[in-house]
Amino acid sequence: MIGIFDSGLGGLTVAREVRRRLPDAAFLYLGDTARLPYGSKSPATIIRYAIQDAEFLIAHGATVLVVACNTVSSVAIPALREQFPTTPLFEVITPAVEAAVRTTRTKRIGVIGTRATMASGIYETMIHEQAPRATVVTHACPLLVPLIEEGWQKKPETGLVLRRYLSPLKAKTIDTLILGCTHYPLLRTKIQRRMGRSVHLIDPAVETVKKLAASLANVPATQWQGITQHYFFTDVTEKTTELARAWLGESVKLESAQVGPND
Amino acid sequence: MIGIFDSGLGGLTVAREVRRRLPDAAFLYLGDTARLPYGSKSPATIIRYAIQDAEFLIAHGATVLVVACNTVSSVAIPALREQFPTTPLFEVITPAVEAAVRTTRTKRIGVIGTRATMASGIYETMIHEQAPRATVVTHACPLLVPLIEEGWQKKPETGLVLRRYLSPLKAKTIDTLILGCTHYPLLRTKIQRRMGRSVHLIDPAVETVKKLAASLANVPATQWQGITQHYFFTDVTEKTTELARAWLGESVKLESAQVGPND
Repeated sequence: MIGIFDSGLGGLTVAREVRRRLPDAAFLYLGDTARLPYGSKSPATIIRYAIQDAEFLIAHGATVLVVACNTVSSVAIPALREQFPTTPLFEVITPAVEAAVRTTRTKRIGVIGTRATMASGIYETMIHEQAPRATVVTHACPLLVPLIEEGWQKKPETGLVLRRYLSPLKAKTIDTLILGCTHYPLLRTKIQRRMGRSVHLIDPAVETVKKLAASLANVPATQWQGITQHYFFTDVTEKTTELARAWLGESVKLESAQVGPND
Repeated sequence: MIGIFDSGLGGLTVAREVRRRLPDAAFLYLGDTARLPYGSKSPATIIRYAIQDAEFLIAHGATVLVVACNTVSSVAIPALREQFPTTPLFEVITPAVEAAVRTTRTKRIGVIGTRATMASGIYETMIHEQAPRATVVTHACPLLVPLIEEGWQKKPETGLVLRRYLSPLKAKTIDTLILGCTHYPLLRTKIQRRMGRSVHLIDPAVETVKKLAASLANVPATQWQGITQHYFFTDVTEKTTELARAWLGESVKLESAQVGPND
């Protein structure tokens, strides 16, 4: 069974992609809404939370882990691999970097994400491993998640905030932009308009699920197919329910989860 | 010793006011930055966190508790009183309501705050207890905290978001507005400009510390004066340090805290 986790709701963009591409997959989703956001917190705290999230999913039957959160993917993968050495682990950074390097013509790649993801420097490092001469322009965009969670995707204020965040990237004439946070595909249209039609946008959710699907093609269907789909959240409010429905395109049952010794 | 706690940094506006009005007070501050924000979470989760925060402060020597957070003050006070029946507890709602009722001439009072504070309905209830015929207009403003924490107080985007949030309050011609979240006094100038000079702004931090000072006037100085001042945070990043310095007007040592069984 596939276990997908995220700091909150953003990873539902990955769950949605799993349902689209692997409609027969059995999966558990865990969103740590009681402690979100992760993106403004320290690596030590993010690692502790990520290990607790993974423990919860494994305890509930997950045999493959998908780290849907860019922040966790950028700071906690070595710790997760050390803690769960026998569990296959998919993260969102590598597939996004591979897609960006494949896509770019000018070798000028932009990345946007949370403060923690950008501070980790992982996107630059991994892009340079695959394309040593690439120019990488990064920008932390901490306000985009709150704007999306407020449901303001279409409001002009969001356009203005995006303009401020994206201007430095536009000025550097990138031709490929990685949407390095699971929420950002929800602003795809506005970002595309702001960056111009010639800039390719890379959605890590799509690239990660492609990779997951390719890997599962070699695994007997009995090991991952099934009808089980659970959506666990460490805190459920009306807003959680409303956003989950909007992002998945249908109502699903949200189940309360206790994660970590006291949660 | 006074123990002040908040979901994060916002309560420093209360700590600053304590230092200004009670310069000889010994106090501990706790900001739960590892789990912030509280304002978008459910009452059950907020209550659990608040009890753990209070336990930490009491274990470190606090004998009086100041709940600097409007969100905690609006949903967790009965639970805190039940859990810590012998510890004097100051919250920020009552003093703010009393000040607003004293101040208003037209009995048209506005309140802004987090989603959880507004959903609790506590401001309406308490204002109506003291002024049954008052008209109370409330509005949740979830984006203001992220904007302030991004350091965007003076950016035009913040002005536009404020305009959207405050327009319904302005339309209802209130004459008094409670800034029902510890962060909001940091936007005081912009809020005052938007609402107009005739609208009185009530800062719960100022009112709460007035009340605390009046209460301490009857307590022997040896029981609360001293040189101890500690600033504990459950997660410390560069941003925490930078904002703490900016809001307190000086550098203080930020100490790491473990709150709750696993934190």
